Amino acid sequence: MKVVTFGEVMLRLSPPGVGRILQTDVLTMHFGGTEANVAVSLAQLGADTAHVTRFPDHTLGQAASGYLRKFGVSTDHIQYGDGRMGLYFLEMGAGSRASQIVYDRVDSAFARIQSNEINWETVLTGADWFHWTGITPALSQGAADCLLAGIQTANRLGVPVSGDIVYRSNLWQYGRTPQEIMPALTEGCTLVLGGKALFNEIYGLSTDSFQEAGLAMMDRFPMIKYITDTKRVSVSASHNQLSAKLFDGETIHRSRQYDIQPIVDRIGTGDAYMAGLIYGLLTFTNLQQAVEFGVAASALKHTIPGDVNLATVAEITTLAAGDSSGKLKR
Amino acid sequence: MKVVTFGEVMLRLSPPGVGRILQTDVLTMHFGGTEANVAVSLAQLGADTAHVTRFPDHTLGQAASGYLRKFGVSTDHIQYGDGRMGLYFLEMGAGSRASQIVYDRVDSAFARIQSNEINWETVLTGADWFHWTGITPALSQGAADCLLAGIQTANRLGVPVSGDIVYRSNLWQYGRTPQEIMPALTEGCTLVLGGKALFNEIYGLSTDSFQEAGLAMMDRFPMIKYITDTKRVSVSASHNQLSAKLFDGETIHRSRQYDIQPIVDRIGTGDAYMAGLIYGLLTFTNLQQAVEFGVAASALKHTIPGDVNLATVAEITTLAAGDSSGKLKR
Amino acid sequence: MKVVTFGEVMLRLSPPGVGRILQTDVLTMHFGGTEANVAVSLAQLGADTAHVTRFPDHTLGQAASGYLRKFGVSTDHIQYGDGRMGLYFLEMGAGSRASQIVYDRVDSAFARIQSNEINWETVLTGADWFHWTGITPALSQGAADCLLAGIQTANRLGVPVSGDIVYRSNLWQYGRTPQEIMPALTEGCTLVLGGKALFNEIYGLSTDSFQEAGLAMMDRFPMIKYITDTKRVSVSASHNQLSAKLFDGETIHRSRQYDIQPIVDRIGTGDAYMAGLIYGLLTFTNLQQAVEFGVAASALKHTIPGDVNLATVAEITTLAAGDSSGKLKR
Amino acid sequence: MKVVTFGEVMLRLSPPGVGRILQTDVLTMHFGGTEANVAVSLAQLGADTAHVTRFPDHTLGQAASGYLRKFGVSTDHIQYGDGRMGLYFLEMGAGSRASQIVYDRVDSAFARIQSNEINWETVLTGADWFHWTGITPALSQGAADCLLAGIQTANRLGVPVSGDIVYRSNLWQYGRTPQEIMPALTEGCTLVLGGKALFNEIYGLSTDSFQEAGLAMMDRFPMIKYITDTKRVSVSASHNQLSAKLFDGETIHRSRQYDIQPIVDRIGTGDAYMAGLIYGLLTFTNLQQAVEFGVAASALKHTIPGDVNLATVAEITTLAAGDSSGKLKR
Amino acid sequence: MKVVTFGEVMLRLSPPGVGRILQTDVLTMHFGGTEANVAVSLAQLGADTAHVTRFPDHTLGQAASGYLRKFGVSTDHIQYGDGRMGLYFLEMGAGSRASQIVYDRVDSAFARIQSNEINWETVLTGADWFHWTGITPALSQGAADCLLAGIQTANRLGVPVSGDIVYRSNLWQYGRTPQEIMPALTEGCTLVLGGKALFNEIYGLSTDSFQEAGLAMMDRFPMIKYITDTKRVSVSASHNQLSAKLFDGETIHRSRQYDIQPIVDRIGTGDAYMAGLIYGLLTFTNLQQAVEFGVAASALKHTIPGDVNLATVAEITTLAAGDSSGKLKR
Amino acid sequence: MKVVTFGEVMLRLSPPGVGRILQTDVLTMHFGGTEANVAVSLAQLGADTAHVTRFPDHTLGQAASGYLRKFGVSTDHIQYGDGRMGLYFLEMGAGSRASQIVYDRVDSAFARIQSNEINWETVLTGADWFHWTGITPALSQGAADCLLAGIQTANRLGVPVSGDIVYRSNLWQYGRTPQEIMPALTEGCTLVLGGKALFNEIYGLSTDSFQEAGLAMMDRFPMIKYITDTKRVSVSASHNQLSAKLFDGETIHRSRQYDIQPIVDRIGTGDAYMAGLIYGLLTFTNLQQAVEFGVAASALKHTIPGDVNLATVAEITTLAAGDSSGKLKR
Repeated sequence: MKVVTFGEVMLRLSPPGVGRILQTDVLTMHFGGTEANVAVSLAQLGADTAHVTRFPDHTLGQAASGYLRKFGVSTDHIQYGDGRMGLYFLEMGAGSRASQIVYDRVDSAFARIQSNEINWETVLTGADWFHWTGITPALSQGAADCLLAGIQTANRLGVPVSGDIVYRSNLWQYGRTPQEIMPALTEGCTLVLGGKALFNEIYGLSTDSFQEAGLAMMDRFPMIKYITDTKRVSVSASHNQLSAKLFDGETIHRSRQYDIQPIVDRIGTGDAYMAGLIYGLLTFTNLQQAVEFGVAASALKHTIPGDVNLATVAEITTLAAGDSSGKLKR
Repeated sequence: MKVVTFGEVMLRLSPPGVGRILQTDVLTMHFGGTEANVAVSLAQLGADTAHVTRFPDHTLGQAASGYLRKFGVSTDHIQYGDGRMGLYFLEMGAGSRASQIVYDRVDSAFARIQSNEINWETVLTGADWFHWTGITPALSQGAADCLLAGIQTANRLGVPVSGDIVYRSNLWQYGRTPQEIMPALTEGCTLVLGGKALFNEIYGLSTDSFQEAGLAMMDRFPMIKYITDTKRVSVSASHNQLSAKLFDGETIHRSRQYDIQPIVDRIGTGDAYMAGLIYGLLTFTNLQQAVEFGVAASALKHTIPGDVNLATVAEITTLAAGDSSGKLKR
Repeated sequence: MKVVTFGEVMLRLSPPGVGRILQTDVLTMHFGGTEANVAVSLAQLGADTAHVTRFPDHTLGQAASGYLRKFGVSTDHIQYGDGRMGLYFLEMGAGSRASQIVYDRVDSAFARIQSNEINWETVLTGADWFHWTGITPALSQGAADCLLAGIQTANRLGVPVSGDIVYRSNLWQYGRTPQEIMPALTEGCTLVLGGKALFNEIYGLSTDSFQEAGLAMMDRFPMIKYITDTKRVSVSASHNQLSAKLFDGETIHRSRQYDIQPIVDRIGTGDAYMAGLIYGLLTFTNLQQAVEFGVAASALKHTIPGDVNLATVAEITTLAAGDSSGKLKR
Repeated sequence: MKVVTFGEVMLRLSPPGVGRILQTDVLTMHFGGTEANVAVSLAQLGADTAHVTRFPDHTLGQAASGYLRKFGVSTDHIQYGDGRMGLYFLEMGAGSRASQIVYDRVDSAFARIQSNEINWETVLTGADWFHWTGITPALSQGAADCLLAGIQTANRLGVPVSGDIVYRSNLWQYGRTPQEIMPALTEGCTLVLGGKALFNEIYGLSTDSFQEAGLAMMDRFPMIKYITDTKRVSVSASHNQLSAKLFDGETIHRSRQYDIQPIVDRIGTGDAYMAGLIYGLLTFTNLQQAVEFGVAASALKHTIPGDVNLATVAEITTLAAGDSSGKLKR
Repeated sequence: MKVVTFGEVMLRLSPPGVGRILQTDVLTMHFGGTEANVAVSLAQLGADTAHVTRFPDHTLGQAASGYLRKFGVSTDHIQYGDGRMGLYFLEMGAGSRASQIVYDRVDSAFARIQSNEINWETVLTGADWFHWTGITPALSQGAADCLLAGIQTANRLGVPVSGDIVYRSNLWQYGRTPQEIMPALTEGCTLVLGGKALFNEIYGLSTDSFQEAGLAMMDRFPMIKYITDTKRVSVSASHNQLSAKLFDGETIHRSRQYDIQPIVDRIGTGDAYMAGLIYGLLTFTNLQQAVEFGVAASALKHTIPGDVNLATVAEITTLAAGDSSGKLKR
Repeated sequence: MKVVTFGEVMLRLSPPGVGRILQTDVLTMHFGGTEANVAVSLAQLGADTAHVTRFPDHTLGQAASGYLRKFGVSTDHIQYGDGRMGLYFLEMGAGSRASQIVYDRVDSAFARIQSNEINWETVLTGADWFHWTGITPALSQGAADCLLAGIQTANRLGVPVSGDIVYRSNLWQYGRTPQEIMPALTEGCTLVLGGKALFNEIYGLSTDSFQEAGLAMMDRFPMIKYITDTKRVSVSASHNQLSAKLFDGETIHRSRQYDIQPIVDRIGTGDAYMAGLIYGLLTFTNLQQAVEFGVAASALKHTIPGDVNLATVAEITTLAAGDSSGKLKR
């Protein structure tokens, strides 16, 4: 199983534990980015993964590449050049206090990527899956163009494509709207993550249910075979409930719901779902099994510090099989 | 909004996490004191604050002042002189294990304060509020006298005064009793924090309910306009329930009850309530809104390490409005 | 109260907090071993304790001895020689993610102990209790022989003996089975910890209930006066329920059940029970009180980092008396 | 003594000790900027200081302000608005390995400052000194304009002005050259820090010695009373030799040379000199004493972690008096 | 070899590395006291040691006892009672910046010791050496009396006694002078550490050289067999030169001089010398060998963090034999 | 430039700073092994590297692989299986106190490697260099056999081979001697690191100088083109002098000598030399330049924590060119 992902990786800086930045004098370092998180998760599951991005050509870029390689992701196709390392500062919340993120990613080395900077033919040959998200086209015209070239190459090579149609309105500062840019990217997708409201907003649909939205999307983008979404009930910053559903045009496969408490680190839990689902779709013939694997992966990610899911197949399988007892393994 | 507080600030030393002192070789430093905690909380809410105290004239006193200033509290009126830095050693509990404090504050620089050491006229001119607690008069005659001078100056200048009538029997070692000392201090208060049993004990009342006690206090101390108290149900060291009430002589305004889990740091949560209430009384015309703001501030403090509340107006308002979902803010 | 314990002590290495080994660059050090954990717990309760073991004759052995001494356990009878320090690497779990242990204890200095290496006469003279577990005879013939010599000496000197009949099948690599080895060791026991299934497997019984198993054990091993066992319901790695029972040949004394949340460190909680029970049996005349003390001790251990229980008699007594409020002690 | 400084403050992030970023997962936080470093140093010497800058209006800006206040610098005149927090990543060197800095300060909140954003009249009234450096006008037109307004206001109010004519060619990205911008700023200076080569380059002089350069500068900029410069011999990253000289138009006052070993933190040592010199000029009538105080302050800064000098008057005076014995003070 | 020491043990709190208290939020914990340091050093050398002191009866006293036990010192004779834990706050210097200590030891549990609180007969029976210093009689009348009882018991039992005649004028606050108190204590000494100036001041001598002072002391206190002193040249806080001399009434045995660079921790280096010398006197017949062992021990202590010397006999012997190459031992 | 290395990688555990294991409760993690250190160093220099080894099939093996990958070394040919992770415990020395290592590597997963476990044909095809050391054949027959297969394959494929003829007598526990094993391994070498005494001992030579030994080695092993050795003068654990020489059968190329002070981490400095020399031989035509590059690389390694050299080509070139000033790079 070989999976390629594409997108920005940021240096995450956060106080130890749940303190505030105002009261710390040390910051823990992680690296993360929604697409790279998927790659790392899949690498832990045994997949052969490669992440494609562009880093600044200095020690931070090297550290970021080192971080990905450490977790088993190939960095062979990463470009190095001018621009900054994207950053985000995270204050982890607890109980009724929400986690807060200050992004500092403007004009990053990734945002400066050029459409022809990646040799997608080389990158994607032999791949079994290509994954992107709606963050990338929001960053710059170059990133959007480069992504489109990647998707089109994947389509040409017969590599299935998944797109997480996430929409953050405070990105999209370069003069284009998601309504203009996203459809062409969605065109080439086999699997799409999103919900009714999001699809209505981005694609101008007016649907009333997940099923209806899924059918409308499949109608408009005939390559789409699966639509998926997660549902999170946020009881507190330390306690969430999570489930997912996967629609194949006929049936909505609904996962069990997990009651997650305590939450160690909520960041990257959606990416962990996506990674688990891709693994499931490439491994199991049963769609129910795939979605259950995805949501169990995501549930476990909530217990792991950092952006990336370091859960193993064995741990996910155990949880998906219903054993959430957390019994000590000797 | 300018608020002045007066009282001892101690260096708090505690093992990282929930370990015991016996098993650590490093101690985290915070500074705290019930009145200064109120000042820091109010500074986070945007108030112009000044804390008045007396520190030893060496590096620990400078560090303590620096701590207050960092969080936006003016240290312009702090005196430096002989005596020790008051200390307390804290072992943070969890679940069924209680937190434990060893105080080491005898003969501190603050306890050596003299009644005429503070120029209260200068300090309180232009202030909108003055806050004190029952810890201060328990420490030494000098501290009690100095406090009385402050309250009387506040009264003369028309500055509202709040008193937290906390009583710790293991303090009061200098030969006087709270029954002798507290009435004169209470005399000048606009707002008093305490409950029926406490008032009965300190002021020799024999009342049977919060309302009855409140009326009796207002009868005896005619300047009092508000009596307030918090109610805490301690399910475990990691799980508490909290509510508050505010009596204005006519109505008891009761806040909603918060179910607080997990508790990150319980120290200073009462002070966070007091700060929130003072902010509320100075900001809102609605007493219900004030008490809700206070208790929401206190609830959030339980999620923040250290003695002082670093929650913002936005966070408190969100929680007071009923959103305890802790959803990630990007 | 003088208690002697015998067994391997390992260096425990674990990432800070609940991170994975793959993502840390620092490991916290504790020392632990099921029997030594009992000794340390009892030392915190005021007992005069001595642990007998064999350490490598280098800095790690000295650090291990220092660790025991720090917590008040005599290391006067510890032998130093060739062989390695036994190690274990722990990843602490949370929520639905289980804790995981990688043992690295093969060919340790302890496993190389010779049967005549300990002067049991000297060690046990004056002792009020001797404790061992089924880990020791699983490690090597020498360890099993040395233990047997200890138990027989205890019997000769009239020192009560407790045995925790724990069975880990991945130990027992030296060519003997527990079925061959354990009966002779059990012969000399006053108190035995284990359950029906375990007794059936090790001693070839075929009993259907704890009571039946207890009676069968007492029948076969006439020195046994008490059989005890704990019951744990693992809701998650962060939430367990715990109770215990003690059978005296007539009555099963059942403790109350504790709902333990959050769990700080689950390792050594069984040993904490054993220590509490031994303390109880040597202190109280009432068996119900003894088992309640034991299980309260164990419940508190879940809140303390490391393998050893640092709870005090006062804390355990408070909890056993039903106060699990965790209220701050000033 | 009241001193005002103006310039960017950056968040400094560096691995603990002398490790490389590639090998750490934690970064220590300091804040620093050449002008703010001067303010903090002077605050430690007892001066009343205020730093003027512009921070982003989020938690990093608040943390930066808190840092300055903690060390006694007034933040009352700081502006908050859009833009980023300037950052720099530092790898501390040792021996033959040089320290390395990666700057990430483009488009910071400070660089976005507007010329009229500071009310210099208010800021500088009552000040005894105003200090700026050549970093500020290199960052943006707005910063250069705002600085010029400050210098001119200082001149109008009779406040002495010092300028550190540092030139970093990789700054100056906004279309102007130092040759165009610096002269107008230098016009208003009483004290200027720089050497012959620098003055020749920036001001188009062609002088052959420090004295000649000093006279040429004083000729061109008649307000200049003093020219000063430091001389550093870099034996290794852990061992430097340092001296300074001060020219008053007639005499070059040369300090003793310090042999500095080991170096704990070299960053901000030039700023520590400047602060010491300003303190000296405002305190002593003897110029030799002033320059000796400055270079002793700088020597001590090499032993203190972070950008800012936390040495006290007593420590500096002791060293300037020739006692570099480092004898323990009890 | 059994050695008994008597004196206060303090909790030492210091920032990590060489930072200042003003800039840290974590303090490292060590315990130390000049006499206990001698005991710990000797325990590392294989001696059977016991330290006698009085600790507060709470978690800090237990942690202090645990610290001593960990390093192999018996705590069997330690008393627990009222009073505080003595503390000191240390800022470690570097280069030209001196280390600084803020003591906070007034009214400690040790200072409250009563003259009859220690059963010296029991403590000293079987001992080969008893060590005290001039700190103890400076703390309180009780401490001085209790020490005198100890020395007299030692004399009665024939146990050799050493006294480090250290004089700190800022102690001695209880109304007596060293001139009044010290002679009776010195009376019972076999070995005394001090120099000419000190002896002149305390004992009213007027001698002009170490030899002359030694002879005068031996004349006045006939039990004294040896006088010793160290000589330290403080090049900087990171670089010292150290030597020692031992006078036996006839010959001054002078050690080689060590050039110590870098200094990791200078605290307790005098105590390390004393421990090494005591070890030497009890082990070697050759006085030159004894003094060389002592000063080599002290030199090594400068490389070890904390108050206590953890150097081994092998390490000291290697250094005393002239090998200061620091070559890696595999 | 593609370089392959083969050998054990151990987990290194050491107290922070220069503390002793007895006094820490946290250990920093690095991974290292003499051959892998060469690979990591070369990867930092831009080489394409692969390390071949065998790890335990659990989290420690994964962490070790991750460590290598992070620094850019391919782990594609690493085997996973039974056996332990080799460990070593390091106490870093300072000044006159030597660093000390406790090895715990017996029966590691690597020692259990089988001679046919590596497909050397695949591994070495396309390689430009293969490096091994005398540690590997000392560990087990399997390791020696597997190494021999590797060398022979390299010879067959025309890949130059370097051998570091290190001899540690406390290894070689499996029944064979280096005299038996090493000659066949040396047979295939192009470059050999060692000195006269070592060669005399291992190969039964009786030579009197480096040149004579070199000629004798080249005579006996005709494939050898270069003999190299380093010379270290150990002034103290914090101060060494280092130089190297390279003999090509005709000329001894001697490097300049470096005075290295302070030493941050001495481990792996020999490997850094080897890596630098290999880089130099593959890059420069000038042998003098190669040896200078090697020794400059080694000098820089002394300033970098951990086993591996993270110095860059630019840093090494600067130092080799004579600039050891350590001037801050902005």
